[in-house]
Amino acid sequence: MEQITVRFQPSGRQVRVALGTSIAEAARSAGIHINNLCGGEGVCGECRVRVIKGDYEMESSAESFFSDDELEQGYVLACQSKILGDIEIDIPLESTIEEAKILKDEIQEQAVHGLITENVSYPIKPLARKIYLELSPPTHDDNITDLERISRELRKKIGWHSYDISLDCLRTISTTLRESDWKITATVVKDKNRYRIQQVEPYNTVDKNFGIAVDVGTTTVVAQIVDLRTGEVIASEGVPNKQAQYGEDVISRMIFACQKDGLEPIHNAIIENINELIDMLINGKDIDRSHINAMVAAGNTTMSHLLLNLSPCSIRLEPYVPTADVYPQIYAKDLSININPGAIIEVIPSVASYVGGDIVAGVMVCGIPDNSEVQGLIDIGTNGEIAIGNEEWLVCCSASAGPAFEGGGTRCGMRATKGAIEKIEIRDGNVKYQTIGNASPRGICGSGLIDCIYELVKNGIIGSTGKFNRDLKDPRITYEDDIPQYIIAYGDETDSGDPIVITELDIDNLIKSKGAVFAAIKSLVDYIGLGFDQLERFYVAGGFGNYLNIRKAINIGLLPDIPEERIAFIGNSSLSGARMSLISEAAFEKCISIAKSMTNIELSVYQPFMDEYVAALFLPHTDKRLFPSVDY
Amino acid sequence: MEQITVRFQPSGRQVRVALGTSIAEAARSAGIHINNLCGGEGVCGECRVRVIKGDYEMESSAESFFSDDELEQGYVLACQSKILGDIEIDIPLESTIEEAKILKDEIQEQAVHGLITENVSYPIKPLARKIYLELSPPTHDDNITDLERISRELRKKIGWHSYDISLDCLRTISTTLRESDWKITATVVKDKNRYRIQQVEPYNTVDKNFGIAVDVGTTTVVAQIVDLRTGEVIASEGVPNKQAQYGEDVISRMIFACQKDGLEPIHNAIIENINELIDMLINGKDIDRSHINAMVAAGNTTMSHLLLNLSPCSIRLEPYVPTADVYPQIYAKDLSININPGAIIEVIPSVASYVGGDIVAGVMVCGIPDNSEVQGLIDIGTNGEIAIGNEEWLVCCSASAGPAFEGGGTRCGMRATKGAIEKIEIRDGNVKYQTIGNASPRGICGSGLIDCIYELVKNGIIGSTGKFNRDLKDPRITYEDDIPQYIIAYGDETDSGDPIVITELDIDNLIKSKGAVFAAIKSLVDYIGLGFDQLERFYVAGGFGNYLNIRKAINIGLLPDIPEERIAFIGNSSLSGARMSLISEAAFEKCISIAKSMTNIELSVYQPFMDEYVAALFLPHTDKRLFPSVDY
Repeated sequence: MEQITVRFQPSGRQVRVALGTSIAEAARSAGIHINNLCGGEGVCGECRVRVIKGDYEMESSAESFFSDDELEQGYVLACQSKILGDIEIDIPLESTIEEAKILKDEIQEQAVHGLITENVSYPIKPLARKIYLELSPPTHDDNITDLERISRELRKKIGWHSYDISLDCLRTISTTLRESDWKITATVVKDKNRYRIQQVEPYNTVDKNFGIAVDVGTTTVVAQIVDLRTGEVIASEGVPNKQAQYGEDVISRMIFACQKDGLEPIHNAIIENINELIDMLINGKDIDRSHINAMVAAGNTTMSHLLLNLSPCSIRLEPYVPTADVYPQIYAKDLSININPGAIIEVIPSVASYVGGDIVAGVMVCGIPDNSEVQGLIDIGTNGEIAIGNEEWLVCCSASAGPAFEGGGTRCGMRATKGAIEKIEIRDGNVKYQTIGNASPRGICGSGLIDCIYELVKNGIIGSTGKFNRDLKDPRITYEDDIPQYIIAYGDETDSGDPIVITELDIDNLIKSKGAVFAAIKSLVDYIGLGFDQLERFYVAGGFGNYLNIRKAINIGLLPDIPEERIAFIGNSSLSGARMSLISEAAFEKCISIAKSMTNIELSVYQPFMDEYVAALFLPHTDKRLFPSVDY
Repeated sequence: MEQITVRFQPSGRQVRVALGTSIAEAARSAGIHINNLCGGEGVCGECRVRVIKGDYEMESSAESFFSDDELEQGYVLACQSKILGDIEIDIPLESTIEEAKILKDEIQEQAVHGLITENVSYPIKPLARKIYLELSPPTHDDNITDLERISRELRKKIGWHSYDISLDCLRTISTTLRESDWKITATVVKDKNRYRIQQVEPYNTVDKNFGIAVDVGTTTVVAQIVDLRTGEVIASEGVPNKQAQYGEDVISRMIFACQKDGLEPIHNAIIENINELIDMLINGKDIDRSHINAMVAAGNTTMSHLLLNLSPCSIRLEPYVPTADVYPQIYAKDLSININPGAIIEVIPSVASYVGGDIVAGVMVCGIPDNSEVQGLIDIGTNGEIAIGNEEWLVCCSASAGPAFEGGGTRCGMRATKGAIEKIEIRDGNVKYQTIGNASPRGICGSGLIDCIYELVKNGIIGSTGKFNRDLKDPRITYEDDIPQYIIAYGDETDSGDPIVITELDIDNLIKSKGAVFAAIKSLVDYIGLGFDQLERFYVAGGFGNYLNIRKAINIGLLPDIPEERIAFIGNSSLSGARMSLISEAAFEKCISIAKSMTNIELSVYQPFMDEYVAALFLPHTDKRLFPSVDY
């Protein structure tokens, strides 16, 4: 069949497809997301694109979505239009908005369908399993103990283990068995190589078994409630980390915690966070908190320590030693988490003081140790944590990125929540932007800031050093105390009435952040003697929001300049990893083996890192040969 | 060398020894205890015996212990007298008193010297071990976590295990390590196949590691405090079980516990008992209760359930099913035991509803499963529990003996404490008795009651049915409401001023008790198809006191009529087993394997038991052929 070439703007990406393919199909082949709410039925009108040049044919029923003017300009619905020859197509910002939602949904899909990521799959076998048992009542010939009777049936159903039991649970079984006619549901948990009966309930309650996955971020704490029977995510919520009142970043919180009586309040703050999230997650739903039987938390090493009320003091001081990297399994009551008091809590193990369970969870989610190809993961939060490896080896490092990409440290930065500008395009002096939830803009989140820097440098508004071109006569450029700033949204467009701007200082902060991240990636790749081109896959995770424009992230020198299709934004992989661990024993055990096998490179004592950092404080980089594809 | 014959009275036992052997030595050869406080130095004067006929030579220095009259009558010190030909010797009651103390000491000896009983030895490796570690401080090249640093050193010292840690302990290690210059003492406990770091203390505290062994008896609760480093018993104490206020015997306590809100007070009572015992044990000693790191309790199945606050209700009802037979390891704080809150508590596992951890502990102590010969153990408390077996098989049963042998259910019965008459001899209408602690008599304990019945029947005061010979004119026989009773101690001899008597009703109760015990032994032996003569060794344990006259116990038909030297009284083997388990992991693990492998024969549904019981309600038995050696 005849092949024709399709070129998409503004990315410039090209793809070869068969003649007669739909534009939507061609975009999918090119790896470009176009909204697809109705599943290609031509009824939602969300996949509007504009044919710049070339032949096409659109179903006539789709014409009703457009004005005559628009039809004349070449606007079509991508799903209803066939390509009839080489063609160039512009995809407006608004037609890719839905991507955010899709990314979230994809993660949910993974959970439902046996936890499949691109490279790895785990069976659903939650950390707290409920097993329904119908026992035969005791007789003179079969008068084993109540506990042994339950264990015997469990062995038949889930394996020949020796079943431990908690004293609290043991105290209930005699009555429960006899009052429920020997029909019970046992909640079984695993702690390393041992199984424990954690709860015995009357009759069949297997459909009431929930778990909480938590990403304990320095800036944001995100949690999900999951149906442990199906793996389905029921709800997700995020709140700012209440520890911020004791210090904005990890270091200042450690300093606070190490003062006299400092640990308790900072520990309590994160417990309050989690309890608040749990309240939000179950609010309005038919879920009793006593049916929440497990929780898995992932976070950086300091956050994990503070969650468990462990002193973080030695993490901060040379030679950077944490109290522990693998944490004991504990009960909800030990941490005053308001779920079933006997629910188990697992914290994803860390690797080192500055490589935490969040990156371990991410490495597990990406399946890096399950593949022969070399793959990398960078998780950009307040710290940038990087892991590279394959089935034979794993190395990692971390660098302080600052809070810029999470919305901190910039004038109008904000977390990726409703009203955050997450996409920006500047063309011909006009600014187009997209906010999360289509709300009035309230600020700019990480992905918006990346777009912003790229758009500013591409349009010549700032130079490679991040300084404004003061010769420009652009009404969006204003000055405050002689510091230039660029207006992304005028006051009449915003929620507060104040304009949303990005200042030269903001840009300076952002360049430092991206410089640190890139220098860390470069140092690690150099350390192991690889070139960027040997990274077959590079995963990007972080709290940018639900969206990241990878091309623009390369263009500002944040990510290495490798073929775009090798890079995948995977959202909050710390949360995904916590959730997968909650739902699959094997996934949690994989996290433990990752944490134990990963080698940490301490950049603070690795000489070349500082040089790399300085070299990276330009857009895209002082050494442009590292970014051959960058077009400005 | 010429052998001569020595005959001892009142037992009539004979032994052949070399000419020139000391009387003390000859008595030892015959298995007869004579006091030996000074170790045979001739200075304590406690081994007074009387030579009835035959030649002997006493060191002249020993003469100062006797009046001329006494010397004339043949009184000598056994340790200072050589036998010069066939001889007959009378051993007065007072010269064997010390036996009680000796039995206690022997048990202590076992504990100190690697826990050697007659048949079995275990290495000292307590359930909570303290290990002193001098760690190298972390460096950049050696910056493993604090926990891993401790674990690494533990692996060098005590084995390549994966060390778990409790959260409470984990919270302390960062500070402790740094404040004690990396010199610490780790308390390590084992829970099934896993090791856990339970406590980390600054500097070297290995000499401060104590444990509590408890025998939770229905009538009496006895505890010892043990130095876990050496195995040495530091103190022993006993108190009446406070649960008695809710019911005298096991059944009535179960009934109480199964009423609404009945379990809690009966559970609290035993916790109060143990806390009171601990107070007594450490009183006046340089022992901090925070250094008590482990406790092992043994008791019958109901006592074990009540200790753990487990419902005993199904134990009482057909088909007699306990909640559990193997109990989880728990912490002292879980039971509000006033020792180190993180101290571990283990309860010796049970076999069935009426065969508890007390008998399991005893079987372990006797080494029954470690020998090819068939051996038996009977533990006579409120219940009589019997186990028989060898290295290939173990069977057990139990029968209600009533509280008579523990001092309950008889007019002047009492526990084996100070002032209890523990030995009685009646000769020519005179009563000689010995009290515990040489105190004024307050009552009669189990061993005294056994002596008493034997002496009464031997002297023709009662007949084989236990009824008094009403034709006798003996001033010690009096009547109350036409029920005859025999005065053991007149009012002017006793502590209270009231006479101490044994009534016909008491004797009737005691015969029922001994009948039940013997019937149980006989039933079990018959069940497995053995004869009594095939019992190579028969151990007798129980709360009689520290002493039991085995010959008299056979003579009243309580114990089977096998050669006396095959029977050994081993005191409180439940307590010994708890203590051995506390001091030796291997001993505790042996208890678990015993509990799992022992087959329980339920006598309540075993038809022949009732017939055996009725046949045993005589002195010594309706079938005198079963007791060929009995001399009345």
